[in-house]
Amino acid sequence: MPITPAALDELRALLGADGVLAEPAALFTYDADAMTLERTPPEAVALPRSTDEVAAVMMWARSHEVPVTPRGAGTGLAGGCTCEQGGLSLSLNRMDRVLSVDEPGMRAWVQPGLVNLWLSQQLASRALYFAPDPASQQVSTIGGNVSTNAGGPHCLKYGVTLNHILGVTVVLDDGAVVTLGGDACDAPDFDLASVVIGSEGTLGVVTRICVRLLPVPEAVQTMLFDFESVEDACHTVSRVIAEGIVPAAMEIMDRHTVGLVEAWLKMGLPTDAAALLLIEVDGPAASLPAQVERIGAIAREWRARSQRLAKDAAERALLWKGRKSAFGAYGRTASGFYIMDGVVPRTRLAEALANIYRFAAERGLQAGNVFHAGDGNLHPHVLFDARSPRQQQDALEVSHEILRMCIRYGGTISGEHGVGIEKRPMMAELFDAADLGVMERVRAAFDPARRLNPGKILPGGSGCGETHSHGRPPAQLGGILFRPDAEGPWI
Amino acid sequence: MPITPAALDELRALLGADGVLAEPAALFTYDADAMTLERTPPEAVALPRSTDEVAAVMMWARSHEVPVTPRGAGTGLAGGCTCEQGGLSLSLNRMDRVLSVDEPGMRAWVQPGLVNLWLSQQLASRALYFAPDPASQQVSTIGGNVSTNAGGPHCLKYGVTLNHILGVTVVLDDGAVVTLGGDACDAPDFDLASVVIGSEGTLGVVTRICVRLLPVPEAVQTMLFDFESVEDACHTVSRVIAEGIVPAAMEIMDRHTVGLVEAWLKMGLPTDAAALLLIEVDGPAASLPAQVERIGAIAREWRARSQRLAKDAAERALLWKGRKSAFGAYGRTASGFYIMDGVVPRTRLAEALANIYRFAAERGLQAGNVFHAGDGNLHPHVLFDARSPRQQQDALEVSHEILRMCIRYGGTISGEHGVGIEKRPMMAELFDAADLGVMERVRAAFDPARRLNPGKILPGGSGCGETHSHGRPPAQLGGILFRPDAEGPWI
Repeated sequence: MPITPAALDELRALLGADGVLAEPAALFTYDADAMTLERTPPEAVALPRSTDEVAAVMMWARSHEVPVTPRGAGTGLAGGCTCEQGGLSLSLNRMDRVLSVDEPGMRAWVQPGLVNLWLSQQLASRALYFAPDPASQQVSTIGGNVSTNAGGPHCLKYGVTLNHILGVTVVLDDGAVVTLGGDACDAPDFDLASVVIGSEGTLGVVTRICVRLLPVPEAVQTMLFDFESVEDACHTVSRVIAEGIVPAAMEIMDRHTVGLVEAWLKMGLPTDAAALLLIEVDGPAASLPAQVERIGAIAREWRARSQRLAKDAAERALLWKGRKSAFGAYGRTASGFYIMDGVVPRTRLAEALANIYRFAAERGLQAGNVFHAGDGNLHPHVLFDARSPRQQQDALEVSHEILRMCIRYGGTISGEHGVGIEKRPMMAELFDAADLGVMERVRAAFDPARRLNPGKILPGGSGCGETHSHGRPPAQLGGILFRPDAEGPWI
Repeated sequence: MPITPAALDELRALLGADGVLAEPAALFTYDADAMTLERTPPEAVALPRSTDEVAAVMMWARSHEVPVTPRGAGTGLAGGCTCEQGGLSLSLNRMDRVLSVDEPGMRAWVQPGLVNLWLSQQLASRALYFAPDPASQQVSTIGGNVSTNAGGPHCLKYGVTLNHILGVTVVLDDGAVVTLGGDACDAPDFDLASVVIGSEGTLGVVTRICVRLLPVPEAVQTMLFDFESVEDACHTVSRVIAEGIVPAAMEIMDRHTVGLVEAWLKMGLPTDAAALLLIEVDGPAASLPAQVERIGAIAREWRARSQRLAKDAAERALLWKGRKSAFGAYGRTASGFYIMDGVVPRTRLAEALANIYRFAAERGLQAGNVFHAGDGNLHPHVLFDARSPRQQQDALEVSHEILRMCIRYGGTISGEHGVGIEKRPMMAELFDAADLGVMERVRAAFDPARRLNPGKILPGGSGCGETHSHGRPPAQLGGILFRPDAEGPWI
């Protein structure tokens, strides 16, 4: 139901006048996430300050039959937080505090609007940190990370967001407040916290999060290798892991990406290399020299041309800067680029890359790659002229071919960005009707009226029987950037 | 509905004559798990050999309205696999194969009846292993480990079973076969695999499991310290973790336990010590000496009287043998003992132990403790004369006091054994009605007819509104051993 003026007044009475936005200009900010061309503004935005206020909003939404879509910093890349069906955008940004830190227990309760990096910054004096580090971590919120089960370069060793969340407080569709999981390890409930993590706001609104904290590693070493073939870089990655070494991160940039980064930052990267491989190891200081040496030997066996070992924190930051600037570099050279998120088994990385270049070349487009090699998590980019509808369409087709390849290789269609609206049409290619049916049933158990982020993730339909029909045709896939002036999206 | 002779014939037609047991003598084996006095034999036992056969059984059960309770090795300690309401015991023991090993991808698909230790044994030549190591691992099955989300001494560093399962194939109540999660990291589905893990067979029957494999650590060092007070041992544990060292295991045995183990095994343990603390570190060989030294220094700061460092694998095995024989040692001295499983924050271990001794002493009973100190996961034991109904009742009351203390201290009522029937009455003390209500809703989404392991885990009732009523009075708690001749249960 559209939000009536009377309902809006009720909402203002619950949250205060400054807790509700409804002017068109204000809604514009909330009409998309970081990468979606599809702009669908909400009818109103609620800015609650507490779990009680969120519960009040949910009861309000129920009585007025208003769809509710939770939102963090809006850095998502799959359209997960957009209000496709109108209704209310529920922004958690004002709930941005660390509620409590249990230092000996190495855990903290935080609010969902807390920016990821702020938590580790606040914990620095205690030598603790929050491990999940999506490249958006300077901006994205922990609630958003929970919502998408965000990854990051270091999830190779440390796992994704799910592995660092002990419990969540969730406001359900009817305003009930439940705590799933909690401080203690392995609470004896059905593990519903894990279902909520990654559910993109479709099951409830997360208002408190119990995060696991880790001790800051005693030492870190960062290496950069360059190779004459992407295959050799990929083989190095596989070999390192096969030998039982688990680096904190293993990231590959291909020639295309290296060229663009170097043209921008002029940091002395070898632009004639087919691939750069960044490997970071961390842990007890005494354990690192042997690992660094062995990794170097493996890379040389696979014909690495050179090796650079960061001497200090400044040089380490510089090596990472090259990696983290890749997306900004793309933005400087093409008016549009499409970023994908797919996973293939690590052992098939080299052939997957060859296919990606071919898919793009067949349509006269350029593709680049910078990716979490240790996890087989690819982030292919296709550059195109955003003024050309034909090239946009070609880019979308390339993305479909890439995701189908990921499925065919035994991988999956999202490593960390989530499904949102972007990957929804692919869900029925990855999962069969029975798999989707059980997801529908669980979703309905949480939100029978489908008021929470309606239409997202699952391919469509309101019941188990309809899970084969797609909610929208593939041509409406989101995820296209047209912001040549942007700093670059966060991946 | 009771199983009719005609229904039994139908079942035999599905599974073959040797796939069904229905003679009373055969059913006796299936009337309890490892520690439950309550013996409730099933009406029949099915022994399927494949996912298809399990699906056929579930369709058969639906048409005949027969309750189905999946069962692994029956080593559980909470009555999770007993057929409290009659019906069919679905034994997965014949499905005991490793289906495939992806060595470079470090994962394997296995059947649920595979014994935990067999998997690591089969992988030894590849230097890979399956990390979860419940002390039952020589007997218990990976399906059973999944069902209870089993822990083990090494879950301090490596996490519980949940952290090592990538996906599961599940047969639902209606015979549909779904795959939840899978080979790829972070599949973009609702994370229903995590809900199934630890659900004790109430949501579906797990018939295939994709497990994560780890490289065997390059080196291991095992230390044993002895202390004049349990508090000092606990402080050592907290301090080690606070310094950022994450040992593979930290286990404490109290004086009572050490005395009984030494009386049995005569391995030279210091029986005058108030507590023994076993600490194991593993990882790259170069990283261990510094950790061993620092841990030793911390223990000495907390007044450790002596330190023993295992020289080789044989001595390491001996140190672990002391720890692992604790339960057998209890069994030698009392005709009955009750083993509990509770969790308190690591920082409150010392006061929790003092309370446990007091709760028992107030009733004239003896309590012992051997526990996963790093996780705050206690396994208190109360010894009693199994011929005395009064002492049995006293032991049950002690157990209630202990579990309530765990809740009061911000811990939980099960670290790894699950809920089953034993902890069911406590669920409503740990969770509120809204929490239990959402669990009920999710359970009903999977199994609306409540045919799967009916009555387990949740405190009772068939709908959300009834979750406050207990399924059975606390006096019927299970978990009591009366097997003085047994090798000892597995914890």
